Amino acid sequence: ELVALIEQTLMPATPLAGLRFTITAGPTREALDPVRYLSNHSSGKMGFALAAAAAAMGADVTLISGPVQLATPAGVKRIDVVSAEQMHQAALKVAVQSDIFIGCAAVADYRAADVATNKLKKGASEQLQLTLVKNPDIIAAVAGLAKQRPFTVGFAAETQNVLSYARQKLLNKKLDMICANDVSQPDAGFNSEQNALTALWHGGEQVLGLQTKAALAASLITLIYQHFSQQQTTSEANK
Amino acid sequence: ELVALIEQTLMPATPLAGLRFTITAGPTREALDPVRYLSNHSSGKMGFALAAAAAAMGADVTLISGPVQLATPAGVKRIDVVSAEQMHQAALKVAVQSDIFIGCAAVADYRAADVATNKLKKGASEQLQLTLVKNPDIIAAVAGLAKQRPFTVGFAAETQNVLSYARQKLLNKKLDMICANDVSQPDAGFNSEQNALTALWHGGEQVLGLQTKAALAASLITLIYQHFSQQQTTSEANK
Repeated sequence: ELVALIEQTLMPATPLAGLRFTITAGPTREALDPVRYLSNHSSGKMGFALAAAAAAMGADVTLISGPVQLATPAGVKRIDVVSAEQMHQAALKVAVQSDIFIGCAAVADYRAADVATNKLKKGASEQLQLTLVKNPDIIAAVAGLAKQRPFTVGFAAETQNVLSYARQKLLNKKLDMICANDVSQPDAGFNSEQNALTALWHGGEQVLGLQTKAALAASLITLIYQHFSQQQTTSEANK
Repeated sequence: ELVALIEQTLMPATPLAGLRFTITAGPTREALDPVRYLSNHSSGKMGFALAAAAAAMGADVTLISGPVQLATPAGVKRIDVVSAEQMHQAALKVAVQSDIFIGCAAVADYRAADVATNKLKKGASEQLQLTLVKNPDIIAAVAGLAKQRPFTVGFAAETQNVLSYARQKLLNKKLDMICANDVSQPDAGFNSEQNALTALWHGGEQVLGLQTKAALAASLITLIYQHFSQQQTTSEANK
């Protein structure tokens, strides 16, 4: 008891202690050949800020990251991947051991139908047709888990009709929450140090205005935790 | 005379003083929409090392760089670009004011035929056909300049038939020298701190074995300068 008392007194506030978060971050890269790839402008900064914020509040955090130029936040377990298929495999493996899953990665929707073993040579032709096939939808797969489904939060990076596209995704992918990100704004979103988001859930939404990604991440983790706790309470009450 | 003597004694060795180098480096990114792009694994390290080596030897260096995560070497003038078309414009503008042009950038051979203004929405279809069109061939354009043509050095990053593909490019693009880079080797080339190259010219070649990119760059700049000087001497003698 004395040890417990001392620990309680000395430990910082860790409201998320015992909770397991899985967070995906960054872009994915889809190889066309050993040299060329398809990717997107995600820097990973928002996902890394979320991982840092959750870990700082005492959560057990696994961060699944695409290729980014960022240091792993303190206390976070990091799994590096390159392609959407690799991220899909890693995410489903860890998701079933998680309480909360946040899909912040900008996963490539499509990959090359065929990946060339050697560098493609530029032909004489002025045009080249590239056939792309759909990648697995990671966040929908996690939200659709029949067993051990975590509380699932998605991101929607859009350049137009941002809130309506985001609410469609919330419904279609059966998410618990979605964060709408207007990436057409030059001072927010991809590669910026700042961001603004609107969090949407079934029956409500909340604007989180332009601020540093670190401050935004702390607010968002708190908001997610509130909704997760409410859902837990409701489902306990219904038992 | 006293001033000249003091300057000569105090100044470091600057064998390239008065020579103007233009060096391209890094990948280019070809937008598909505001979020997605095509690119390649070039880190820009080799081109930046070449710029640093030439500047250290006293040359006046302009570095035209695609999107990379690298600091500008001391004394180097840097022009940042994103796409192959931007690099083409910048390169031709500076090339005509240069003595030596080194095309070390991994320029995308193709870009999207149409760049979407808003983020492309993932459709219901499992496949997507992407139409790509050829980008301008920057190094061939520089080597083909009728007036104010600099001594032109290209790079050939290949994964197979490395030397024969490189020699074809030397001839087809009418270069003065080409550096063949086997990027299938995991310990050399793209993103590595080390590299090995074979420099090829009309009538000869020289292997520059595996070493740091800084050491390799110093050897290569010296080799390029030797060939440039020989060509100057020959063309002076023919006047």
